[in-house]
Amino acid sequence: MQKNKKDTTVSAAVIKRLPRYFRYLRMLLNENILRISSNELADMMDVTASQIRQDLNCFGGFGQQGYGYNVTYLYGKISEILGVNENYQAIIIGAGRLGQALASSPVFTKRGVEVCALFDNNPQVIGKEVDGKKILDISEINNFCENNIVDIAVLTLPSEFADKGAQLASSAGVKGIWNFTSKEISAENYPDLTIQSVHMGDSLMMLCYDIRSKENE
Amino acid sequence: MQKNKKDTTVSAAVIKRLPRYFRYLRMLLNENILRISSNELADMMDVTASQIRQDLNCFGGFGQQGYGYNVTYLYGKISEILGVNENYQAIIIGAGRLGQALASSPVFTKRGVEVCALFDNNPQVIGKEVDGKKILDISEINNFCENNIVDIAVLTLPSEFADKGAQLASSAGVKGIWNFTSKEISAENYPDLTIQSVHMGDSLMMLCYDIRSKENE
Repeated sequence: MQKNKKDTTVSAAVIKRLPRYFRYLRMLLNENILRISSNELADMMDVTASQIRQDLNCFGGFGQQGYGYNVTYLYGKISEILGVNENYQAIIIGAGRLGQALASSPVFTKRGVEVCALFDNNPQVIGKEVDGKKILDISEINNFCENNIVDIAVLTLPSEFADKGAQLASSAGVKGIWNFTSKEISAENYPDLTIQSVHMGDSLMMLCYDIRSKENE
Repeated sequence: MQKNKKDTTVSAAVIKRLPRYFRYLRMLLNENILRISSNELADMMDVTASQIRQDLNCFGGFGQQGYGYNVTYLYGKISEILGVNENYQAIIIGAGRLGQALASSPVFTKRGVEVCALFDNNPQVIGKEVDGKKILDISEINNFCENNIVDIAVLTLPSEFADKGAQLASSAGVKGIWNFTSKEISAENYPDLTIQSVHMGDSLMMLCYDIRSKENE
């Protein structure tokens, strides 16, 4: 794993916005659009051009007058800042439908993360393969992580086993947990781990709330 | 669909925090814990007791001195505010692995939303059933939505078809879109629709960034 120096010139607020820039720049690259003005990018992303200039200038992504931004350069720079080039390796704990869906989803590869195995305790799925990745017995997790570099554990097991999954991941020595259960993994219990939760259900509730609010307008 | 009056006494900032309260209160109910003090809840949720009191008091969830909060009452009240009791119906557009995983996930039922069908254009999955829900030909979507109440369309198709999916959902007359593609659905293009996006990839990127930052500390 390459150890880059932490980029201290980019504020936390800008960092939070970078994944969104990453998505838009990736889309532009896929469409073979190699340069774009701050005004065009602002229109696409529904933010102000001055916000774009402020955000991108802080890591040297200066657009040129009459030319605009170099999309390839910006995409590469943002990828570097966000750690896309670190080639982190992930395991998925919980090889049910969601775990299997994620194992074959482009969400990892697009961001430079490779899923190397799935783990479950269900004999009906152990031994199977998903998109070329093996589903292993959960009891093999420590052994696997000793013999392979594993940075991230993805928790896709039922919520009631979330803590158990986090404990397994922690004792196997991963650096981060990507939590898809509705339960929160307390950072206090795992001070060495980095934790991010998706909490899909919270998003669904906000959708329901917004739909009802609109109906009652 | 029952039309409740919009609760105008609860601020947008509090509303955003309610799904998290919902998850914790649900967990307490599952553990048969029927009352809890603001201090206990604050400890669990890693916020201050005064924040809890401020948030919950604004919709009449007043805790009683020496008794604490009535968990069942609070859970019911938050469910009501968020629209959990509206029994919204959803269709899933894109019956690949992620669509099928969501169709059988408890994320919907826990929040009072029912998935009534999936749609795809792939002949290999059309006609199959997932957890008792049929996968129908995407060409039948308008017909289906005319004959069934459908409130929400879940987009789980490949990102390059996100706009196509949103157009289909819009012309079929749904009220809201729950977007799982990496593409953003522009609210400007669909002024009648409510849109929420999950953007799992953004969450993965923040995890990678945080892992690298911790390594370089």
